[in-house]
This record gives sequence, structure tokens and C-alpha cells, in this order.
Amino acid sequence: MGNSNFPTLTKIKEASQRIRPFIHKTPVLKSTAIDKLAGCRVFFKCENFQKVGAFKARGASNAVLKLQDSIKQKGVATHSSGNHAAALAKAASQAGIPSFIVMPTSAPTVKIDAVKEYGGEITFCEPTLEARERTLMQVVEETGASFIPPYDHWDIIEGQATCALEFLEEIPSLESIMAPVGGGGLLAGTALSASYLSSTIKVYGAEPLGADDAFKSFKAGKRIPMTNPKTIADGLLTSLGERNFSVIMELVEDILTVEDKAIVTAMRLIYERLKIVVEPSCAVPLAALLANKEMFLGQEVGIILSGGNVDLTKLPF
Amino acid sequence: MGNSNFPTLTKIKEASQRIRPFIHKTPVLKSTAIDKLAGCRVFFKCENFQKVGAFKARGASNAVLKLQDSIKQKGVATHSSGNHAAALAKAASQAGIPSFIVMPTSAPTVKIDAVKEYGGEITFCEPTLEARERTLMQVVEETGASFIPPYDHWDIIEGQATCALEFLEEIPSLESIMAPVGGGGLLAGTALSASYLSSTIKVYGAEPLGADDAFKSFKAGKRIPMTNPKTIADGLLTSLGERNFSVIMELVEDILTVEDKAIVTAMRLIYERLKIVVEPSCAVPLAALLANKEMFLGQEVGIILSGGNVDLTKLPF
Repeated sequence: MGNSNFPTLTKIKEASQRIRPFIHKTPVLKSTAIDKLAGCRVFFKCENFQKVGAFKARGASNAVLKLQDSIKQKGVATHSSGNHAAALAKAASQAGIPSFIVMPTSAPTVKIDAVKEYGGEITFCEPTLEARERTLMQVVEETGASFIPPYDHWDIIEGQATCALEFLEEIPSLESIMAPVGGGGLLAGTALSASYLSSTIKVYGAEPLGADDAFKSFKAGKRIPMTNPKTIADGLLTSLGERNFSVIMELVEDILTVEDKAIVTAMRLIYERLKIVVEPSCAVPLAALLANKEMFLGQEVGIILSGGNVDLTKLPF
Repeated sequence: MGNSNFPTLTKIKEASQRIRPFIHKTPVLKSTAIDKLAGCRVFFKCENFQKVGAFKARGASNAVLKLQDSIKQKGVATHSSGNHAAALAKAASQAGIPSFIVMPTSAPTVKIDAVKEYGGEITFCEPTLEARERTLMQVVEETGASFIPPYDHWDIIEGQATCALEFLEEIPSLESIMAPVGGGGLLAGTALSASYLSSTIKVYGAEPLGADDAFKSFKAGKRIPMTNPKTIADGLLTSLGERNFSVIMELVEDILTVEDKAIVTAMRLIYERLKIVVEPSCAVPLAALLANKEMFLGQEVGIILSGGNVDLTKLPF
């Protein structure tokens, strides 16, 4: 690998040890019926069972625990309407430090409640990126807290990489591994661990067609931020981060896009066959696999199910 | 134990070995949030991950495998609109013998499809118990197949008992164990294994108020069959079997009833906190626990989640 900034295998293994007391070692599930449908053997790494219900607990814990003690005491801050907010609040609470979370007034009640439950101090702002960033700057200035971004940060990527590390330690025979891609924290981390642990494994990103900036950026060789993303996979609306993009360009085989309809079908299949609760973003890799069966025929394929935080009153089936 | 017909611990352990190649050893899950709510430590044995999506795979496999070779070849038969039908069809298919399933015309398409998927030969009949029994008798006469009832049968009870056996081998410290009760196959099996493996554990049945024949029978000391049961817990509409009742009277501490509203609340809690898909019947023990917290304060409580076959388009939330 050319980029000397990339977290090394040693660093990722250290991160895995560091966060171990604060996260779950999540199970890997299988379904004979899905294997039959897909024409290959599919292994699902279930981060929906992770603390705070999503892989985000890994990166947030790692970033908080790596802060120097002197600056750690002032707390951490971020702007987020999603799983990163809850993950950071929980990681801060476990470290005994305050967390300051900027949330748009439009954030779902369930996400706001989760942040409160973990003791996060919420500042609300208008639901625009500009207002979020401005409010965050004010909060950071007032409190002296450290800004922990949701994905474009090496400690976050290193933390998310521990998921594929665990996965490949349990199922070393995987020939392909897929993760959904939004900001690219999970996909970049997955690509790093996979490339270190196997010289032949292929890494794929899976993205909704309605938020396909990673696909377009990957093909163009430069970041093309998304405008007006629209997809049921609400965890994947963000555009690729800079660090994330550099890892993905170097280590990812391809990015596959799928329509929302296929995402809903795959999501229902996961509920019916694996009997687990996942959020729509989770179902994107399985949808991509089923839409590209011939690429994976007879293989052992690993899919990372990213999270399970879904509004149960609004399931799309 | 007074009744010499009851399956012994040795028999249950033999059953566990016998069915091992055909069933999953299901995982035990926990949730810190549910513990906090309940005021005790709750362990969930997840039979929703079982083959055919329910504990019924245990009893059906055991009953089929115990048939003498000479009569086994003629196949097995039952009448059922639920999980037992699919479980028996699958067990028969694995044993390489035919299965004949009598189903009411009113059975849900998803259950009919499951039986077909496992190669069961379906005979439809009017949706009355009388028609079901008459049609079954005709099928048995024509085919010479052995009738395997859904719960009132020692081999079925012995098979269902393997669930609590596994559970207590994994978590021997359980102080109470709860199972839902419909026909009583799971509860009787649970009571047997629990009484053999612990001299102090208390066994509870949990039942919907709208189908509370087990509660009434238990209090009266004689079987009082249910007329017009009405509850969202569609797996628990049947009345207690005779053998099941004899075990329950001797080994169960109490039967707790709950209203449908509490069942739906508990069901949602399982989806939100454990991130797993369960059917309404599954949620009855947790509902009973939450309605009787003071009885279990500070204890280690085991709950058997019986199955995950639910119509996802009709979730009650």
C-alpha cells in the first residue's frame, strides 16, 4: 500500500484490543435459503447486534480512547443525526467525559432519545449542513471539546476496521467481502483489514443508486460529492470522506449500485430468513450480491450488516 | 417425580443427541436495557433462529427419528395450520420418508408454502377441528402413515425438552425459567429438563389472557379446554394436551397471564433491543415478567423465545 497514513495491521489490532471491553464481538449468521437464492455461501457479520445497534460504536470508542488524557477531559463533540451521535455519546460516557452533540431539529425522536440516554448534551440547530458546522464550531469554542467526525478521521477508520478483522479471523476462507458505503468509514476499514489478512480477497462497496457518489467518485478517480441524495437507505446519504476515498481507490475492487426496490426485497429476505432486525442501509450489500450473482457464483462471500436502528412503525413492507 | 411415563433425563439427553444433526444449537442473547427495565438479568434462548423458525423442529425430528424402520417408511401425518406442519414435513424429508399434512383452507399462504417447500403432501379441509380430524383419519387409513400430533405425545415433549436442556447447560445459574404455553409441549419439556438439572429453579408458564385455558386448568387441577380463544399470540390458541397437563401440574410453579396490549409492548421491546424477529407468542413470557417484576427482582431469569414466523406486513406496531 502506497499511503503511509493508512492505519497498519498492528494499529488495527491494537484498536481491537483497546475497544474490546466496550463493544460486542458480534455473531456471524448464515441461511441455507439465502445461499440457495444467491448461488454462493453468504456469511453475515451482524453489527446490528453491536452496542448502540451499529458498527459506529467501534470507531467512536477507538477515537475517544485514543485522545490524550489532558485534552480528553474537556470532552468530545460532533454533529450528527444518526448512529455516530449515539455511539460517541456512549463512548464518552464510558470514558467518564462529557459529549456535546449538535443535532438538526429534524432528527428523529428515537435518535435524540438515544443520545440523551447515553448522557450526551444536545445543541439543536437548523437542519442544514452550514448551520450544523457553524453550531459545532461554537460548541467546540465554548467547551474546548475535541471534534470527532463521523468517518473522515483515521482513528474512526481504524476502529471500523476491527469489524472485518474479527470477521476474517472467524471465517478466514472468505473470497469476497462487501460493506455498504456512505461516508466510507466502514468500507475503508473493511478494505484495510481484508487487504492485510488475505492477498486474494476482493473487497466490494455497495451503494444505493439514489446516493451513488462513491460509485461516481470511484469511476472518475476523484471525489464527486452528492447533491440531493434520495434513498430508503437513510444511513448512506452522506458523501465520501477524503481519507476514506484514498483508501477505497487503492484497495476496493468495485462499487456496486442498486435500486431502492432491490434494497427493500433484500431487507425483507434478511428479516424472513435470518430473523433479525436491520436498517435499510444494511440490506444494500445483499441486494448488490443478488443483482450480480454471476460475479460471486460458488464463492464464500462475507457481508457486513451495519446496523439495526430502524423505525419499526415504518418498515417498507 | 411420580409419573413413570415422564421422559427421564437420560431419554432427553438421548433425544438431544439424536436430533443434533438436524437442528441448530440456538444462541442465548441478552440486553442491558431490558435488564434495567425488568430489574433482573434476563437470558433469551432464541428458538426463532431454529430450523423452520421455531422450537417445533425439535419435537418433530425426535418423533420421526424414533419411529421403527418398518412403519417409518409409510410416512408421517398430522393436521396443523402452524409451525408443527412445516417442522414435521422437514423432519420427514430429512429422514427420506413422505409426510401427509392436513391443513384448513384458511391456513396462511406462508405456512402452506413452507410445508410445500419441505416436500409435504397437503390435503386441504374445512377450517373446523371436526373436519381436520376426519380428514386426517382418512389420510392415515389410505396411506398407513403414522399420526404425529403437535404436542400431546411423549416423543414430542421429549424433543421440546432438549431446548431447556441446552439452555441450562449454557446458563446453569438460572433461578427461574419461563416458556409460553399453548398445547403445552414446550412448557412440559422445559419443566422436565429444569427439574432434572436444578433442584431449586422455578418454572413458569406464560399465557395470553385471551386463551387462558392452561391458567384455568392449572388452578382447577383439571383440564378445562378453551372455547373461542382470541389473542394476537396465534401460536397459543390450542388447549393443553393431556400428557402436557400431567407434567405441568407436577412441575410448574405457576402460570402467569397477560393482556394482548402487554404482549405487543414486549414484542416491540424484543425487536428494538434484541434486534431480532419473533412472532407474538414469543413475547408472552417477557410480558408476564414485566407485569410481575417483584417476583423476579435481582434474579437470573431464562426466557424461551419460541419462534420467528410472523407476517412482516402485519406487525402490530
